[in-house]
Amino acid sequence: MLTLPFEEIEEVLVAILQNYNFSDEKAQLIARVHTQSSCDGVYSHGLNRFPLFIDYVKRGIININADPESIASFGAVERWDGRSGPGVSNAHQCMGRAMELAQKYTMGCVALRNTNHWMRGGTYGWQAADRGKIALSFTNTQPNMPPWGGKESRIGNNPFVVAIPRAEGHVVLDMSMSQFSFGKIHTYKLNNEKLPFFGGWDEEGNLSKDPEKILARERGLPIGYWKGSALSIVLDMLAALLSDGNPTCRIAEDGIETNISQVFICIDPENFSDPSLKDRLLDEIIDHVHDVPPMDEGDQTYYPGERTLAARKQHRKDGVPVSENVWKTITGLT
Amino acid sequence: MLTLPFEEIEEVLVAILQNYNFSDEKAQLIARVHTQSSCDGVYSHGLNRFPLFIDYVKRGIININADPESIASFGAVERWDGRSGPGVSNAHQCMGRAMELAQKYTMGCVALRNTNHWMRGGTYGWQAADRGKIALSFTNTQPNMPPWGGKESRIGNNPFVVAIPRAEGHVVLDMSMSQFSFGKIHTYKLNNEKLPFFGGWDEEGNLSKDPEKILARERGLPIGYWKGSALSIVLDMLAALLSDGNPTCRIAEDGIETNISQVFICIDPENFSDPSLKDRLLDEIIDHVHDVPPMDEGDQTYYPGERTLAARKQHRKDGVPVSENVWKTITGLT
Repeated sequence: MLTLPFEEIEEVLVAILQNYNFSDEKAQLIARVHTQSSCDGVYSHGLNRFPLFIDYVKRGIININADPESIASFGAVERWDGRSGPGVSNAHQCMGRAMELAQKYTMGCVALRNTNHWMRGGTYGWQAADRGKIALSFTNTQPNMPPWGGKESRIGNNPFVVAIPRAEGHVVLDMSMSQFSFGKIHTYKLNNEKLPFFGGWDEEGNLSKDPEKILARERGLPIGYWKGSALSIVLDMLAALLSDGNPTCRIAEDGIETNISQVFICIDPENFSDPSLKDRLLDEIIDHVHDVPPMDEGDQTYYPGERTLAARKQHRKDGVPVSENVWKTITGLT
Repeated sequence: MLTLPFEEIEEVLVAILQNYNFSDEKAQLIARVHTQSSCDGVYSHGLNRFPLFIDYVKRGIININADPESIASFGAVERWDGRSGPGVSNAHQCMGRAMELAQKYTMGCVALRNTNHWMRGGTYGWQAADRGKIALSFTNTQPNMPPWGGKESRIGNNPFVVAIPRAEGHVVLDMSMSQFSFGKIHTYKLNNEKLPFFGGWDEEGNLSKDPEKILARERGLPIGYWKGSALSIVLDMLAALLSDGNPTCRIAEDGIETNISQVFICIDPENFSDPSLKDRLLDEIIDHVHDVPPMDEGDQTYYPGERTLAARKQHRKDGVPVSENVWKTITGLT
């Protein structure tokens, strides 16, 4: 495992993206987002995912010159078309627009269709919280979990993000509807370990903790079994309905995950609460959760986003971890 | 088990509520909501819960004459105070107001503080969908689950509702953040059965499927383990922040669950989509989910709300089931 300075990684990614003819603005944004995700400890959607992103660019699946376009405006809700552009720049712009709508109406929503993978969903939560806004956001994906009772993957793991700004560290929840991502299950397999809880189904249709057996069929387990399955379905309906875009059942029919649908909801707390009173309330909730005796000796409870911030601080100081293989692949892209 | 006609149950409840000095309007609304929940198969928050509601009324915890009051207006977001009134009439009125805001701004939000238990959360999802509106709604509760890693119940199971209108049957998700409610776990205990999956912790801090052991400590398991725990925390933060009301850590310090906080978000799809095109999209998603081969022979996949509607149809025809004991208790309240 290498540890490299944030700025060094970012510069390398910018240069690669410029080589692939991204505009300076897009190159800088996308390089920063991938670097930040690894810096925050979300390697799977940071540097580890960069080669796959470039592969989609090379295959012409992602239109690097496309910017999202406002299609229609309905008061506090707007519909945008991502025109198959980069998922990161599309999502960044739409969250920015949702913030403007929230400033005006206190709550605003942008629904985005025909966009690409936004990488780490939490990115746009931190973006909003850094500007003092509350965000609720979600995306649909290709099918990767069976609906509860079914045998084939027909629903997406549809990441869901909630961000709440706070001076001492934003609260940011970034969760998908699957108990474990396939990336995480793959890591267990590499380490020759079982999952701590069920993560999917084996060939025979039994719930399993065996990474190899789960990966053989790629049927992920929804959080809370029937509950996460249902939540995935309604998030998909909302994303497709609001954006007039593709639902999960139309995505990746040809194996390529593109032209997905996303929703960005923003709330502006400055319109209704004093920032210090807001933080006092959040601190009260966080203290109550922190204060709890641990279930297992030495264990600890965290608020959503707490460990992200700890990883960020550490990696800004000591360097951002990146596997040698991944870094070799990335530097080979230039 | 008795089966009684919907109208007969409703009339009995109305008479009881009038005896307890509820206004005609509130008596009719509350009677209808409790009857409808049992009719829809949600007995725990329908007739089974009616005696506890009356107990709270008798103890003066619920102010039967209170109506919610608009405290402040911030564009598409409004803040209301429930003034310790009945949870059902407060929630009904606030969802109604959120619908009006949605008509005006396409998306509207009412945050309600100082209210009481809304009984079945799905009630307000069906209310919105029946008027052609999309709803997202949630409530906080008294603490009933440990935050992930902790030993004591410090977070609520915070029911979360998503409703999407559809001519052939609305899509309504009504889920709490706990894998099983204590009511459900109690039913397993009565039937001398184990839970099919972990539902909480035993005395020694081990995850358990044993209803008796879980009920001894009342530490419920969040859906998706650490994920549901985090989602519960952020929903509580949003409810308290938007309403300037109580977070879970201030609720039921004295054992009485009152003065809780709720959020009602509405979206008006008539502002941006043709109803028949909307339904075609929803049908496409539902068909894809229904169409899946079952994991277990003879099993089936349902869309959220589908079984509710089936129960409603059956019980409207054959009568609403109510246990003899519950009915005896209720009729004894007059």
